[in-house]
Amino acid sequence: MDISQIGGEFALIKRLAKKPVDKNIIKGIGDDAAVIKFKSTYLAFTTDTMVEGDHFSLDYFTPQQAGKKAVEINVSDIGAMGAKPLYFLVSLVLPEKIEVEIIENIYKGMRDAGKKYNIEIIGGDITHGRQLVIDICMIGEAKKENLKFRSSAKPGDSIFVSGDLGSSIAGLNLFLKNIEGFKEVKKKHLEPEAKFYKIEPFLKYINAMIDVSDGLASEVKRICEQSGTGAVIYADSIPIKPETKKAAEVCGNDALDYALYGGEDFELVYTVSKENLGKVKGYRVGEITHKKGVGIIKDGKEEPVLKHGYDHFLK
Amino acid sequence: MDISQIGGEFALIKRLAKKPVDKNIIKGIGDDAAVIKFKSTYLAFTTDTMVEGDHFSLDYFTPQQAGKKAVEINVSDIGAMGAKPLYFLVSLVLPEKIEVEIIENIYKGMRDAGKKYNIEIIGGDITHGRQLVIDICMIGEAKKENLKFRSSAKPGDSIFVSGDLGSSIAGLNLFLKNIEGFKEVKKKHLEPEAKFYKIEPFLKYINAMIDVSDGLASEVKRICEQSGTGAVIYADSIPIKPETKKAAEVCGNDALDYALYGGEDFELVYTVSKENLGKVKGYRVGEITHKKGVGIIKDGKEEPVLKHGYDHFLK
Repeated sequence: MDISQIGGEFALIKRLAKKPVDKNIIKGIGDDAAVIKFKSTYLAFTTDTMVEGDHFSLDYFTPQQAGKKAVEINVSDIGAMGAKPLYFLVSLVLPEKIEVEIIENIYKGMRDAGKKYNIEIIGGDITHGRQLVIDICMIGEAKKENLKFRSSAKPGDSIFVSGDLGSSIAGLNLFLKNIEGFKEVKKKHLEPEAKFYKIEPFLKYINAMIDVSDGLASEVKRICEQSGTGAVIYADSIPIKPETKKAAEVCGNDALDYALYGGEDFELVYTVSKENLGKVKGYRVGEITHKKGVGIIKDGKEEPVLKHGYDHFLK
Repeated sequence: MDISQIGGEFALIKRLAKKPVDKNIIKGIGDDAAVIKFKSTYLAFTTDTMVEGDHFSLDYFTPQQAGKKAVEINVSDIGAMGAKPLYFLVSLVLPEKIEVEIIENIYKGMRDAGKKYNIEIIGGDITHGRQLVIDICMIGEAKKENLKFRSSAKPGDSIFVSGDLGSSIAGLNLFLKNIEGFKEVKKKHLEPEAKFYKIEPFLKYINAMIDVSDGLASEVKRICEQSGTGAVIYADSIPIKPETKKAAEVCGNDALDYALYGGEDFELVYTVSKENLGKVKGYRVGEITHKKGVGIIKDGKEEPVLKHGYDHFLK
């Protein structure tokens, strides 16, 4: 049986996950990061892998950008738990003939991104393989009251997103189709940034949270599955920049599909109870419902979310 | 410039490592694991990667064995710092057509090994690439007085190894050359085990410590480089099992070369001051010297260690 036969990457992770035995494991496999109660504090751990030729290409990424992105996507996962990054480790799989300067520049990009968050590389592993793989494992810390899980959404909560969606996948498509111009859209793909700073001021009013790795529809679905709820997404309320729409058009795609199913925007999706609506910022893009399933309301009609987000094994 | 031109993997790591800024980073890049002072305790972090076709092959490893090995090599690194493992994360890069059963069995092997040490998988990442890559990031904890670094060897220390060497690389060569038999030697390659339990009873008498990933000669060299010392290795005192010698002979190799330059035995190499010699167990295989450089005394004559250990980029 191959992975597409069981329903893709997400189904595989569910199959592999087991309920933790250790009571200090507050969250194991299945959230943006794992959370451990450790002595008097809470530690968050995440790992995220970028494979050259699959997740990025040195044809359009500079090595610094690849290094920077590897750090930002992990910071994003730590932030999506309500935690702050502390340290990270780097594993590199290097093809035999790679230039040392490329590796040094990947490291430079990682260190530069690290400086932004005041975190350092504490260790790692370097080994050899056919494809360049950059894998980062990051450690963060959170106060108990700041921890945010996918599983804490409540029916009646409004769903917010911290910023515009679809630009990263638009940028990728511009590169893949060799389309000139659209510098800002492309930059969103090459230099994504963790968005924790946007929601930090009103963190305490958030119930559930996740970052956008695989598109808004997937992320809302994950919140619903773990919270035992459903949701409706208001398609017309999803923030999509005019340049992103233009880029989608030039690529022959639908910008709304980019926002719903594209991914890698690393904006945060969060749910907020009715009584706290006035206390948060962001774009209100939907609502958590008692009724299971995730629907999308578009031009006054509701459609179910059918497609998965970006899934390598279901292409 | 490629990696062989700058002197291989080890030289590359030195080039990439920077002195940590954060004072809580007790050890950064360059030891078996990183060590962080965290609140009232010390945390150890390591990551180790296995690439199918480079570090192991599913032609002779069962998926369980591959999973088990991935855990043991990380436990070995944590143990080599004097720490105990707490939790681990798993990153998998999967080729598109891999069978789900293989992945489940890799996980089974990892969980079985985890049970031995009472540790659980807390998270990870699954993604797609051309080659199967198993990357584990492990967290451990140590008491300050138990921490052991590569850099703490002192001239006059005796060098010990916790068990016999060369069998893992002998096993690998038997597989690569399709030689039948030698079940026990092959098992040493397929099912290595962390050896912390062997040295735990006398941990406090150890000065410097490292695990044998790349052969005794490399490990002693690393201790010396970081301690600012030299060493002599007594070739005739290195424990090598008769089966390993026989396997080496059948493979057309020298068993002493296997022990010195082979690697993946995961025995521990440790140095002990004169006054504590009676308090430790193991095989005394050399001595730390004031004079820089590492020499090997064989049949009464001293030869310098010239070759590197196993280095993918210097083959």
